[in-house]
Amino acid sequence: MSDPDVTPDAPSDLPDSDLMENVVGLCKRRGFIFQSAEIYGGFRSTYDYGPLGVNLLRNVKNAWWEAMVQRRDDVVGLDAAILSPPAVWEASGHLSNFTDPLIDCRKCNQRWREDKIDGVCPNCGSTEFTPARAFNLMFKTHAGPVENEGAVAYLRPETAQGMFINFVNVLQTTRKKPPFGIAQVGKSFRNEITPQNFVFRTREFEQMEMEYFVPPAEAQHWFEYWLDERFSWYTGLGIPADQLRLRHHGADELSHYSAGTADVEFLFPWGWDELEGIANRTDFDLKAHAQASGERLEYFDQVANERYVPYVIEPAAGATRTMMAFLLAAYHEDEIAGEARTVLRLHPKLAPYQVGVLPLSKKETLEPLARSVLTSLQPHFMCDYDVTQSIGKRYRRQDEVGTPWCVTIDFDSLEDHAVTVRDRDTTEQVRVPIDQLVAELRSRMDQA
Amino acid sequence: MSDPDVTPDAPSDLPDSDLMENVVGLCKRRGFIFQSAEIYGGFRSTYDYGPLGVNLLRNVKNAWWEAMVQRRDDVVGLDAAILSPPAVWEASGHLSNFTDPLIDCRKCNQRWREDKIDGVCPNCGSTEFTPARAFNLMFKTHAGPVENEGAVAYLRPETAQGMFINFVNVLQTTRKKPPFGIAQVGKSFRNEITPQNFVFRTREFEQMEMEYFVPPAEAQHWFEYWLDERFSWYTGLGIPADQLRLRHHGADELSHYSAGTADVEFLFPWGWDELEGIANRTDFDLKAHAQASGERLEYFDQVANERYVPYVIEPAAGATRTMMAFLLAAYHEDEIAGEARTVLRLHPKLAPYQVGVLPLSKKETLEPLARSVLTSLQPHFMCDYDVTQSIGKRYRRQDEVGTPWCVTIDFDSLEDHAVTVRDRDTTEQVRVPIDQLVAELRSRMDQA
Repeated sequence: MSDPDVTPDAPSDLPDSDLMENVVGLCKRRGFIFQSAEIYGGFRSTYDYGPLGVNLLRNVKNAWWEAMVQRRDDVVGLDAAILSPPAVWEASGHLSNFTDPLIDCRKCNQRWREDKIDGVCPNCGSTEFTPARAFNLMFKTHAGPVENEGAVAYLRPETAQGMFINFVNVLQTTRKKPPFGIAQVGKSFRNEITPQNFVFRTREFEQMEMEYFVPPAEAQHWFEYWLDERFSWYTGLGIPADQLRLRHHGADELSHYSAGTADVEFLFPWGWDELEGIANRTDFDLKAHAQASGERLEYFDQVANERYVPYVIEPAAGATRTMMAFLLAAYHEDEIAGEARTVLRLHPKLAPYQVGVLPLSKKETLEPLARSVLTSLQPHFMCDYDVTQSIGKRYRRQDEVGTPWCVTIDFDSLEDHAVTVRDRDTTEQVRVPIDQLVAELRSRMDQA
Repeated sequence: MSDPDVTPDAPSDLPDSDLMENVVGLCKRRGFIFQSAEIYGGFRSTYDYGPLGVNLLRNVKNAWWEAMVQRRDDVVGLDAAILSPPAVWEASGHLSNFTDPLIDCRKCNQRWREDKIDGVCPNCGSTEFTPARAFNLMFKTHAGPVENEGAVAYLRPETAQGMFINFVNVLQTTRKKPPFGIAQVGKSFRNEITPQNFVFRTREFEQMEMEYFVPPAEAQHWFEYWLDERFSWYTGLGIPADQLRLRHHGADELSHYSAGTADVEFLFPWGWDELEGIANRTDFDLKAHAQASGERLEYFDQVANERYVPYVIEPAAGATRTMMAFLLAAYHEDEIAGEARTVLRLHPKLAPYQVGVLPLSKKETLEPLARSVLTSLQPHFMCDYDVTQSIGKRYRRQDEVGTPWCVTIDFDSLEDHAVTVRDRDTTEQVRVPIDQLVAELRSRMDQA
């Protein structure tokens, strides 16, 4: 039966500032995201993903991997190291170009990003500053027992270079031919001077990047192909199309390596902002590394008897900010039978828990059966087992964190060997025999 | 039909040095593991995981997560930041205790680990050294625009502390009660002076750690419980029990925080060495962080009306070295019909590809059907699609990287809508209708 009193919600009715505040509050209250080292006063702009957040973040990354690697035979994966020697970043241009302009206030000595202040020191109001210096955004450390120049290593500011410098390794071991891609999910680090907007821009963050190597003449075709593919990935996982847009970069904002870039943008509470950049990086990176290393980073096309340096189309997404977009788009407040509820309408593939297993009562008579239902579901789904408070309150708790299905074991279950499956969005409840439960939920999952 | 000529193999017949050399060679040749920044001469003791390695490593981590988080309702996940402020490592003891003794040769100025050389400089033969200095193994960097003391951050040398400092956050957001655990998979960094044995000991590595919080009186019980659980995890995924052992630490090798530690050791080619340590960390960590932060890191037991600091049982495994153990244990050489083959007998859950999809011929008549078989399998399994060279060579290629099942599409398939499924270990081949293929492979997977 379905609940007749669900009021359709209108997320856009929430003022943007409330939406942001509500989602950040939910993240803390329910264990999605904590500030890092909170008991020590916090470590600014660094976050820890709690029990629900780690599930959601894993699901986002796994959904990307499934779409970009598992379901394709033209893309393979890679997992390159975070620590890397200066030679890589010299060739890529990061050592000289990956900088922000910083100035010091001559009165109070505070340091600022020149392009982010308005000519007046936000600390003391002085207008006297040192000339701007280029501040490199890469985190620097030392590997080995001596802290000298030869021991310098950088934390990668992007995963992309790991794919370029392994281009020949991958070519030789996989026998792939252009067009083919190398995909990677992993952490990157940027010493941002002005991290902001919760997990949107942080110093430590996670990327999902793919470098797609193509014959130069096909670059424009594949650029457009990947714009479509990547836009569809977000809508397919539940972000409404009207909260997404593609924005092509103007000639003046293109990176030095790019012949064309477009961003997939999401309508964040503070306005449109980037989830992912799709760039035609040309042959810039392979040529730069070939020149710096002396290795041939080329492909020999045996059919055409032709050697060439492939162009690269790069869809580069931020996992943590994408997770944030999914949370913002999923957040709704509606009413059930006159009672307000908060519900995360997350795609079942993304929800931290797919199934809430709820014995109607704490009484010992129900527990063995409830536990056996739980055990039968766990190999297939992330499950939460919740026995405390009323069933209504438990439904609300699961709604609030996006659990698409609740399975309730009641006293009838002992007789009819069936359970009630409740749907998060419609609140519809149906009775399902226990021995068909896995198949029923799998089928709902496949249809989502 | 099965191949009558498979000769049972005896992995222990391989001399250890050959086994190591063969596995390292296979890793490079087939794209499991590359040296980092290889085109720049390599970055010592840092490795990149190639297309097959990243699949295997993901599978190892996912198998751990499934066993430790997904299939349990007493353990939740966490994903804490790598960058962390000094306060955390001061409280944990890492700033003062996590050191190696280093000495400098007075003649050639080379720096060495005192306990690793034999009184004579390996470089110049001198016996004159400076007194030993304690060298901290944590990687240090600076966050923010000024490189001063206040900006110091460390790359975590273990994931464990992220769980301790979030203990109250997790308690409050999940309502778990001891005994319960917090699990984490992620990278850690140690500035090892003597990294060695391929990916066994590296400066950047990946951990799989779980902190299990228990009432102090139950600590010994849970310590033994986790010894059993963790030992079984390795054997359940295919490591023969005679290549594993539990070794209890003597009182003289216990860490400062430990009331008891045992290692799960694997028989590596260089001898028994650690895969995982299971420690009774007592209440050392929670008390240390409580004292340093001023926060109460305790549990209030409402039934007993009692407040206490839980003890912690920690199973802490290395993901990368565990992957290496799975590779070493899986490596076999045998004979099929008088022909030598190399085969990785990896558990199907761990294999980089579960299924090789092989059209018998490159002819265009087979390709549409072969591709439709591939597309139907990809949502469920990691698949490799291989069309080059003879079917026998392609079987060998799949055997060598551990693919448990090959699906061959031949000209009969166009008529009978069935394919041949070949088993890696037995080489047995059976005909399976295409519309039952997913179910057949799923069932083999579940039974593995």
